[in-house]
Amino acid sequence: MQAMAEYSSILLENAVEALSKLPGIGKKTALRLALHLLNEDNVQTEQLADALLKMKHNIMLCERCYNISDTKICSICSNPRRDENTLCVVADMRDVLAIEHTAAYNGLYHVLGGVISPIEGIAPKDLKIEELVQRVQTEDIREIILALPATIEGDTTNFYIYRQLKDFKGKVTVIAKGIAVGDTLEYVDEITLGRSIQNRTAFN
Amino acid sequence: MQAMAEYSSILLENAVEALSKLPGIGKKTALRLALHLLNEDNVQTEQLADALLKMKHNIMLCERCYNISDTKICSICSNPRRDENTLCVVADMRDVLAIEHTAAYNGLYHVLGGVISPIEGIAPKDLKIEELVQRVQTEDIREIILALPATIEGDTTNFYIYRQLKDFKGKVTVIAKGIAVGDTLEYVDEITLGRSIQNRTAFN
Repeated sequence: MQAMAEYSSILLENAVEALSKLPGIGKKTALRLALHLLNEDNVQTEQLADALLKMKHNIMLCERCYNISDTKICSICSNPRRDENTLCVVADMRDVLAIEHTAAYNGLYHVLGGVISPIEGIAPKDLKIEELVQRVQTEDIREIILALPATIEGDTTNFYIYRQLKDFKGKVTVIAKGIAVGDTLEYVDEITLGRSIQNRTAFN
Repeated sequence: MQAMAEYSSILLENAVEALSKLPGIGKKTALRLALHLLNEDNVQTEQLADALLKMKHNIMLCERCYNISDTKICSICSNPRRDENTLCVVADMRDVLAIEHTAAYNGLYHVLGGVISPIEGIAPKDLKIEELVQRVQTEDIREIILALPATIEGDTTNFYIYRQLKDFKGKVTVIAKGIAVGDTLEYVDEITLGRSIQNRTAFN
């Protein structure tokens, strides 16, 4: 009854309720979105609903790298122009997107699905680490780049993976930590600045 | 092909595309929303899609006040506890929500569907003004409150409606213009401040 009194339409109320469950969408924004859809052609709402349902029902994890994919093997893994000898280990599929956007990497990925975190109850067995070890044994990989978050959990996971890969004959590297491009030194935290001095590279 | 390279999933790409057509939702936010839905149970996506489709396909305008409604006559018009002698004329259904939230009004509404605007090509015939005039003739209305936006278009519409209602024997009022509650005078624009002095009320 309260809901009807508020919106004069339980259908609108339900739509606002469902939209406001999305992260960062409050009741006011949800109402704005619902009223926008009401003002537009049916086709916009139908396309939105259809796209969300198809995504939710049909998307899968790539059987090789565990990135999300429409097919059993994702478009990156099946792309013959990618360098199959280099493997970048990331925590999350968002990290794949971020690295792809840099256009600085042309190898393959391995998505762990998170990092080791005792506080959040994420153990090594919850991540695709065992799959990484197996993959390294069967594929011709020469370098593994660890691109995990620069956090304690990320460092712990890096260390754990490094120990699991003790039989790996290739290179294991981690992405560089240092000051961001565009940073002025006075605002950089001392740990990052210290690392950027320790890990200085030749000027050329 | 570019899209596949970007997201490794055309299904995700389509969902992001559909979400980013919503007002105020950019590509990054759309991606965040899509990934959130991917992480949640199927039921959340299904409820969202279902609520949006049901709203879009089944919502209608109340035949009496032209507010959006699930039924031919909306819950406000059919509520016996509302004062049927007072009619508040608003531009948009959002204005009904705003006034309902004040809990300062217990009468009925008439939703015009906009205001007269030659620039946007909105003429009196595009609004529910004729329906208002007819309604006033058949219902026992004693006061009409004009609650349109305090803009030139709103004033024009007020004036047009006032002339159309020349045979109406009851009161026609407009909502008060003045400084907002909490305002300090120095930041109020001079037109509003001038109006608030002209329209001063007895102190009690």
